[in-house]
Amino acid sequence: MSQYIYGKNVVYGLLVKQKPIKELYIQQNRQDNTIEMLALKQGIIVKNVDRKFLDKLVSGNHQGYVAVIDEYPTYTIDEIIGGIAENKIPLLVALDALEDPHNLGAILRTAACVGVDGVIIEKNRSVSLNATVAKVSVGAIDEVKVAKVTNLTQTLNDLKKKGYWIVGSDCHKAVDYRQVDYNMPLVLVIGSEGKGMRPLVKKNCDILVKLPMESDIGSLNASVACSILLYQIYSQRFPL
Amino acid sequence: MSQYIYGKNVVYGLLVKQKPIKELYIQQNRQDNTIEMLALKQGIIVKNVDRKFLDKLVSGNHQGYVAVIDEYPTYTIDEIIGGIAENKIPLLVALDALEDPHNLGAILRTAACVGVDGVIIEKNRSVSLNATVAKVSVGAIDEVKVAKVTNLTQTLNDLKKKGYWIVGSDCHKAVDYRQVDYNMPLVLVIGSEGKGMRPLVKKNCDILVKLPMESDIGSLNASVACSILLYQIYSQRFPL
Repeated sequence: MSQYIYGKNVVYGLLVKQKPIKELYIQQNRQDNTIEMLALKQGIIVKNVDRKFLDKLVSGNHQGYVAVIDEYPTYTIDEIIGGIAENKIPLLVALDALEDPHNLGAILRTAACVGVDGVIIEKNRSVSLNATVAKVSVGAIDEVKVAKVTNLTQTLNDLKKKGYWIVGSDCHKAVDYRQVDYNMPLVLVIGSEGKGMRPLVKKNCDILVKLPMESDIGSLNASVACSILLYQIYSQRFPL
Repeated sequence: MSQYIYGKNVVYGLLVKQKPIKELYIQQNRQDNTIEMLALKQGIIVKNVDRKFLDKLVSGNHQGYVAVIDEYPTYTIDEIIGGIAENKIPLLVALDALEDPHNLGAILRTAACVGVDGVIIEKNRSVSLNATVAKVSVGAIDEVKVAKVTNLTQTLNDLKKKGYWIVGSDCHKAVDYRQVDYNMPLVLVIGSEGKGMRPLVKKNCDILVKLPMESDIGSLNASVACSILLYQIYSQRFPL
């Protein structure tokens, strides 16, 4: 299935990395023709169209650039694990039924920034890799490997057997996130926006961590919570 | 000017805090009538309408509940500073030309969670307090005081004279965010999504901090960066 990927920087990133683009739609009369030149050099079909055409194609802010690509590639858990350098402590993120593409995009962006080895989502319960995710991720969707699994609980169990520790983010009955030693192979599990982790996923966590709160709002945005935890892990693994 | 505020939890939060609601639209045939009962008890006009009516009223996921309120209240800098408890080290956040309501909403949510005393935005350069911001903030818009100022640079200068340190988030020529002592009255400045801080705002910062990065993506989502820094400040002020 074809996907529309949009936004000036995102399309530019695809071209620079020579990702396969089937077609590129560019809004007529753009002053800067860098992207068009790059695309033509790579033999990509470029179609100059009017703004209305692009507005109908995608619902977000396309900035005059829409690329048509095949579906985003995903990886198996084994492919992800097999690709981790031997001298690196593995770090994976598992998202339990995350629904908001803005959150997935922002998590991929942070994941790229701290060198996460792979992000695991469940096939039928999570938002998919789509154009909004790509745009919000500002290119991280091409950097971070994503695995789509059928059963997250089963996957976490398999990873446990391979020596991974499962750390879940939760608001209740959890230890302060600063109390945990993250210097081991880890899967950080983030729950869905409204409901947090499902009971069976939570039950499979070795450690539950929480962020301290002053307010009775009780929880942070999912991508914010994930990012704070990822930077805490990064900070411990690469201290000043 | 009236604002439409929507979402089940957001509307519920307004009612529990007895915020002035001019009218409440509820989608017909909701099974749970808790919100309707609460509203009627407070003498609020409740109108049962069909889904299409609400879909036309607001563009986001209203979940069957839309409240009509007056504009969100804002505060002057003096009102914010005057309201800070004497035994507390003040912490303000200033947003330089932030554009995305999702980011403002998520920042307000984190700000409430770590007890930020006030968030400063510039009148004509920032996204305003609107229904999307309210929904993403999950109620934090009612907890965190927001000041709308005419000239952010001037405001930062005034705050400096009052003993505040201005800490800006920047990707270049900045120190690692873990190297800074945050135990003083602070204004954390976050730049806009695409461009970061404007040069004049940056020039007025006492300290520039950056988050370490493994990737050439080069920056985090604005609300993510702001939240990581806020939790670092919180973590220093309230160590384990």
